[in-house]
Amino acid sequence: MAATATNRRVVLKEYVEGYPREEHMELLPATEIPLHLTSDNPPGSVLVRNLCLSCDPYMRLKMSRPLRASYTDGFVPGSVITGYGVARVVDSSDPRLSPGDLVWGITGWEDYSVVKPPVTAFLSKISHAGEGGVPLSYYTGILGMPGLTAYVGFHEICAPKAGETVFVSAASGAVGQLVGQFARLAGCRVVGSAGSAEKVELLKSKFGFHDAFNYKEEPDLAAALARCFPEGIDIYFENVGGAMLDAVLLNMRAHGRIAVCGLISQYNLKSGEWDAVRNISAVIGKRLRVEGFLEPDHKHLYPKYEEWVLPYIRDGTIAYVEDVAEGLESAPKALVGLFHGRNVGKQLVRIANDE
Amino acid sequence: MAATATNRRVVLKEYVEGYPREEHMELLPATEIPLHLTSDNPPGSVLVRNLCLSCDPYMRLKMSRPLRASYTDGFVPGSVITGYGVARVVDSSDPRLSPGDLVWGITGWEDYSVVKPPVTAFLSKISHAGEGGVPLSYYTGILGMPGLTAYVGFHEICAPKAGETVFVSAASGAVGQLVGQFARLAGCRVVGSAGSAEKVELLKSKFGFHDAFNYKEEPDLAAALARCFPEGIDIYFENVGGAMLDAVLLNMRAHGRIAVCGLISQYNLKSGEWDAVRNISAVIGKRLRVEGFLEPDHKHLYPKYEEWVLPYIRDGTIAYVEDVAEGLESAPKALVGLFHGRNVGKQLVRIANDE
Repeated sequence: MAATATNRRVVLKEYVEGYPREEHMELLPATEIPLHLTSDNPPGSVLVRNLCLSCDPYMRLKMSRPLRASYTDGFVPGSVITGYGVARVVDSSDPRLSPGDLVWGITGWEDYSVVKPPVTAFLSKISHAGEGGVPLSYYTGILGMPGLTAYVGFHEICAPKAGETVFVSAASGAVGQLVGQFARLAGCRVVGSAGSAEKVELLKSKFGFHDAFNYKEEPDLAAALARCFPEGIDIYFENVGGAMLDAVLLNMRAHGRIAVCGLISQYNLKSGEWDAVRNISAVIGKRLRVEGFLEPDHKHLYPKYEEWVLPYIRDGTIAYVEDVAEGLESAPKALVGLFHGRNVGKQLVRIANDE
Repeated sequence: MAATATNRRVVLKEYVEGYPREEHMELLPATEIPLHLTSDNPPGSVLVRNLCLSCDPYMRLKMSRPLRASYTDGFVPGSVITGYGVARVVDSSDPRLSPGDLVWGITGWEDYSVVKPPVTAFLSKISHAGEGGVPLSYYTGILGMPGLTAYVGFHEICAPKAGETVFVSAASGAVGQLVGQFARLAGCRVVGSAGSAEKVELLKSKFGFHDAFNYKEEPDLAAALARCFPEGIDIYFENVGGAMLDAVLLNMRAHGRIAVCGLISQYNLKSGEWDAVRNISAVIGKRLRVEGFLEPDHKHLYPKYEEWVLPYIRDGTIAYVEDVAEGLESAPKALVGLFHGRNVGKQLVRIANDE
């Protein structure tokens, strides 16, 4: 008789308008599932035991009632929430993967997931976990999607030169803390903004930002930026949008670049009510390049990135701060906290320990 | 005794707020000037007889009270208005230029100008006027700043590929009419917007746009664009800003490019009251590149552009429509008309005929 396991799942309960709340999600009672792939699963499927789940700001966009075709499908009420995570393969009909392999990629907010094609293309085998002090959870962050996002956005989109000035918003988050350190390594002067004194201190003491400010304490963001960048900003790594973007446009230098990675300040506003950006004229006068990007377009750069970043992790050149919630039942609260800035560092949820 | 001439000048009378009016400028009574350079003129100066003056939207920005350092100095009340024009050299201490040469570049709104360094760097010798039906006035347009602007913005910034879709706003203007024709030559499908039925007809019948619409007759710009571009827009050549930009963002395709050339709908609004752009999220979701540019940064491409475009002018492949006002006294009215869309085609002022 085949082995079974109990599976708990977090589903979207209803579409979200405004800020997400824990009640928008629901942890369903455990059900019995087979511990192997069945004939119901299409060829190429992979059964995994989920170990860590990643809470990322883009997930908020998938919680809204879909208005129009988007680059990504939304969540469906009653269905399991999906996102990046780290997992161990239990059964596989994907020739790339075997039982026992550790993987990172798109999985479900549940104890076990059957990942089906084409989503299996997002599963990557993990080779370096445990070696030289690289925790498995890093594959939800610095060695996963946020890491490649920071690398592509900063090095490919912004094309930094030593001596340039760099501003990073949401700078203590999963991506921001990396961009700050990549900028420092590139010989740039880097300043970050965050939403608490504790985070500002972290930016300066742990991540090596040359300066930092708490945007909640600044009545005039354009003045705060002018103070931190008397000569102006060459590169802006945009994670927040809204009023910050408008203030940045006034403070950019000629030929500056803005990599648009995220707009977390906007995700809880209704469509059509997103904040006004008015200083578009700066784009001409200063010959700015404003460029959006999505990490999946740049997957082919992952091996190059991993090879580049691993030595810096191992020798401590790059610091990485995680905010770990324990247990699948804590996942909704952890995700909700992102939009109130409650996390300090990369927010993830550890749901099992089999390392 | 040295020869003299009478010189009339158009000066800015007062800083402009809102729409410019003819009364914001003044034609001063003629004064007697020497017809040669004097010891008051710094070495490298050039005395020219102005022949054609160009009316360009960017000039509005120079009429406002300066708020902050800009890429270009503003006009000063009581001083002559400056802008692009075509002129004949009368006297020169610039070794590149000799009396009798025809030039295009930055000059003054007056009968004669002494162009001084460093502005003389903007004076370029005209070699092809009169040959094969190339009117001198074209050096205020298709063979001058607007021509290079269209070429750089479309070919360098937008990097078009055959089969792509292109949208051009202010499409019958000096730059827009060229971008439309360059797009057609590049094998793109091109649609333009303009502000009257006459201009829309011109776009379709004269400039070869595949489709065109009158933005003043469209209650919903996003819907108009969706109708003209059922598959979306790959390239937007931005001349107007404001509501049109917001509507375009909703209709861009993945990996689209927006060259930000001008924002004429915004120039008469007060600083801080520029129209809201809210659809910035499209920049991420569609991985858009939004890039501003200024023609002077790309001067080195002028010879390449001129060589490319001259055969098309000579053989009639590219049409070019000018709106010519006669006489220096008509210059203020011609400039003011730009901001009400009164011009049909490139607006210029012919102030002397010595061809």
